Amino acid sequence: METQTSFRYRQLADLIVGMIENGTLAPGTRLPSVRTVSEQQRISVSTALQAYRLLEDLGVLVSRPQSGFYVAAARGGTLALPSTSRSRAKASTVSISGAVAAMLEHAANSALVPLGCAVPDPALLQSKRLDLALARAARQHGTRYNVYCAPYGEPALRREIARRAMRFGHPLSADDILVTNGCTEALTLALNAVATRGDTIAVESPTYFGLLHTLEALGLKALELPTDPLRGVDVGMLAQRLEAESIAACVLSSSFGNPLGSAMSEDDKRALLALLARHRVPLIEDDVYGDIHFGRDRPRPFSALDSGADTIYCSSFSKSLAPGYRIGWIAAGARTQQVMERKLALSLCGPVLLQVAVADFLASGAYDAHLRRIRRVFEDNLARMTRTIEASFPADTKVSRPAGGFVLWLELPKRFDSRALFDAALEQGVCFAPGDIFSASRRFRHCLRLSAGHVWNERIEDGVRCLGRLARAQLAR
Amino acid sequence: METQTSFRYRQLADLIVGMIENGTLAPGTRLPSVRTVSEQQRISVSTALQAYRLLEDLGVLVSRPQSGFYVAAARGGTLALPSTSRSRAKASTVSISGAVAAMLEHAANSALVPLGCAVPDPALLQSKRLDLALARAARQHGTRYNVYCAPYGEPALRREIARRAMRFGHPLSADDILVTNGCTEALTLALNAVATRGDTIAVESPTYFGLLHTLEALGLKALELPTDPLRGVDVGMLAQRLEAESIAACVLSSSFGNPLGSAMSEDDKRALLALLARHRVPLIEDDVYGDIHFGRDRPRPFSALDSGADTIYCSSFSKSLAPGYRIGWIAAGARTQQVMERKLALSLCGPVLLQVAVADFLASGAYDAHLRRIRRVFEDNLARMTRTIEASFPADTKVSRPAGGFVLWLELPKRFDSRALFDAALEQGVCFAPGDIFSASRRFRHCLRLSAGHVWNERIEDGVRCLGRLARAQLAR
Repeated sequence: METQTSFRYRQLADLIVGMIENGTLAPGTRLPSVRTVSEQQRISVSTALQAYRLLEDLGVLVSRPQSGFYVAAARGGTLALPSTSRSRAKASTVSISGAVAAMLEHAANSALVPLGCAVPDPALLQSKRLDLALARAARQHGTRYNVYCAPYGEPALRREIARRAMRFGHPLSADDILVTNGCTEALTLALNAVATRGDTIAVESPTYFGLLHTLEALGLKALELPTDPLRGVDVGMLAQRLEAESIAACVLSSSFGNPLGSAMSEDDKRALLALLARHRVPLIEDDVYGDIHFGRDRPRPFSALDSGADTIYCSSFSKSLAPGYRIGWIAAGARTQQVMERKLALSLCGPVLLQVAVADFLASGAYDAHLRRIRRVFEDNLARMTRTIEASFPADTKVSRPAGGFVLWLELPKRFDSRALFDAALEQGVCFAPGDIFSASRRFRHCLRLSAGHVWNERIEDGVRCLGRLARAQLAR
Repeated sequence: METQTSFRYRQLADLIVGMIENGTLAPGTRLPSVRTVSEQQRISVSTALQAYRLLEDLGVLVSRPQSGFYVAAARGGTLALPSTSRSRAKASTVSISGAVAAMLEHAANSALVPLGCAVPDPALLQSKRLDLALARAARQHGTRYNVYCAPYGEPALRREIARRAMRFGHPLSADDILVTNGCTEALTLALNAVATRGDTIAVESPTYFGLLHTLEALGLKALELPTDPLRGVDVGMLAQRLEAESIAACVLSSSFGNPLGSAMSEDDKRALLALLARHRVPLIEDDVYGDIHFGRDRPRPFSALDSGADTIYCSSFSKSLAPGYRIGWIAAGARTQQVMERKLALSLCGPVLLQVAVADFLASGAYDAHLRRIRRVFEDNLARMTRTIEASFPADTKVSRPAGGFVLWLELPKRFDSRALFDAALEQGVCFAPGDIFSASRRFRHCLRLSAGHVWNERIEDGVRCLGRLARAQLAR
């Protein structure tokens, strides 16, 4: 029953997306009312509403109070979406460390136009206000805090994180939370808790190269799951793979995964949780982009949808507030004690003062106003970047349409080589992330990721244009 | 030849220690001149001088310019040294995490008398001055530093660390250094680089429980090497073990190992390096206590004695400056790139502002004056603590005589149970570290470690007395 409903609202959503893509529905057009469309399509009002809400969450539609749903302002619109990645026959051992290190070295080079690293521009963050909280904590309590932190992290910070989670429907208590050195350490600890060397971990494809790097360091294999650029992982394909082979854990983005920016619907998330529960496979979720949603509501993570499921929740403030502070956290459910012991064993604890400063900042309420501001900035950046791509890249370039976060994924014709573009772009002073590092099997060499985390300016725009020109030149040869 | 010389200066050193222990040489007594003793003992002047210098480094003698060598002020003197641990037949799998976590939870409880955690009292550290540097960095450069750090860490900090190392004869350049999240992460990365799950790692016995915890988390076995409370690891015994079995790496303290506080002579260090080189076994050294030496010169780490050896150097500022800042570093020689890539994969990078603050503090020159002060404080604390132990513990208690650091190791009769003492002491509001967590084979249940890192006061003294009373009561039953 649920599957059929789910099928129907998706059919409607696909229909609307198709009509927007072929120009039938122009940006700004008001859609028929939910009642009208339910009659037209012979579906229930609630199914129609579900389709509209999904498209709103994806940033395709916007709702205006007392008025209805409208096609969102074009973020481009003439470029198609990247293809859904195809399934691969088997898990790959990962060997990506050299490529990642080289990319990060370039990304840290401030002489290059910063389209490479998925890190928000410090100028957009509340660095000043946060640093004042840090300076205050250092002046007032420095001596008191010059000690090893309590094993789970600073209690005030854990309380603030739990409070925020509760507000978006994720029932966490301070006791569930362990503070980590960014989300990377949270993922390391989570993987360490559920898998051992040689095990296979199912991941999105394409996926964040840092995750692949972690898998390599832990000696784990990656099984790359087909992932739709809008809707995320294909639950049906995952079901097939779970029948066919032994998977130690699944690592997925909670929302707006890097690099696709896709977002699974709550129904799909629930179906995936039920599937994993049947196979007794734990889910590790990475929610670092969850706070940067363009739709009305913050998407709920997997852990919030089924408190009984075997999930480990990982997140950080690196994408939305303070990449320089390295504060992440993990909520590992029944594995909390085990994860804490591994944290002690591998890196003991984190710096206390930074945790105190972030707790103060959160308690002040400043984070919400900050988030409202940067969501609009990132959404606007993505729209400008998409338009610039449209104007400068080859016409058959496909580009993602994320409903949150601040990166774009570009797919070019198969014969395109993003590595060659990378070398050519560096010579022109532009950095981006070549596609091959987003896959253990190095399958996305014809793709690339651009970060729109920087304040939009001429230098950024010229950087994107430069890439477009170089890409056209390469394909013309 | 070298072995014979080494044997002779040791004989003389043992003779002098014996005469101090049996009361023939009282504290403050002037020793015969080097020339006189060389004639008496029929050894060369340089051998005699070597023995005196060794005892000076161990804090047993003090030299006064233009005057000669004197027996150091008694730190007690009536209690014997703990026994050298015996060799064990085989490597042990490690299972210590629960015990360590429980210990650390208690150690973080400020209601308890803090004899448990080997962490310096924040009141003794330059927290204020360091925190002012942090507040300044946050106010002035917060926005600039709210980014991911360069992969190897903040260049200014790496330069300052390299400068200091050069000064005590350890030729490091900034490029050799990778900043880590404390020494614990440095050890994790080092072990990760040289060993894989199931391998055997040779360690001191007793050794720091945190190291055992790391071995457990990485699935490594511990081979416990006999360790002399003054002179450290027995090189001859290590030679036998290397013949008998496969050892993936050796992890040793550079100086003043925790908990014994022993210090290997440079000759022994060189002999050990040569032995490991013959067997192609890498050495990982932990130098966190090296800056807290009571003798004239800072002891040189293994890496400084043979730049061609396969050594990985790990250290941090946690014992001497800022446990709350979590800044450690690793110099991994030929494995530098490999270790950096693992750091990226497991925890990405560290917080930038803290690194900038510590670099500023080091550049100001304030660290040296600070070290001179805390060395005297810790030496004095250890002397007071030893006297208090002498006055309150059972008469057959043996106690270590460290020449650096700030912990004491106590050995009681075999039937003594430090776990029972731990439970009884917690009820009286006193925390210490029970002996069994210092061994993978849990062999030191009759021993315990006391930290003298806190400012000495009545509460601390009463805490030690309370332990002595409880220990006497337990043995009287």
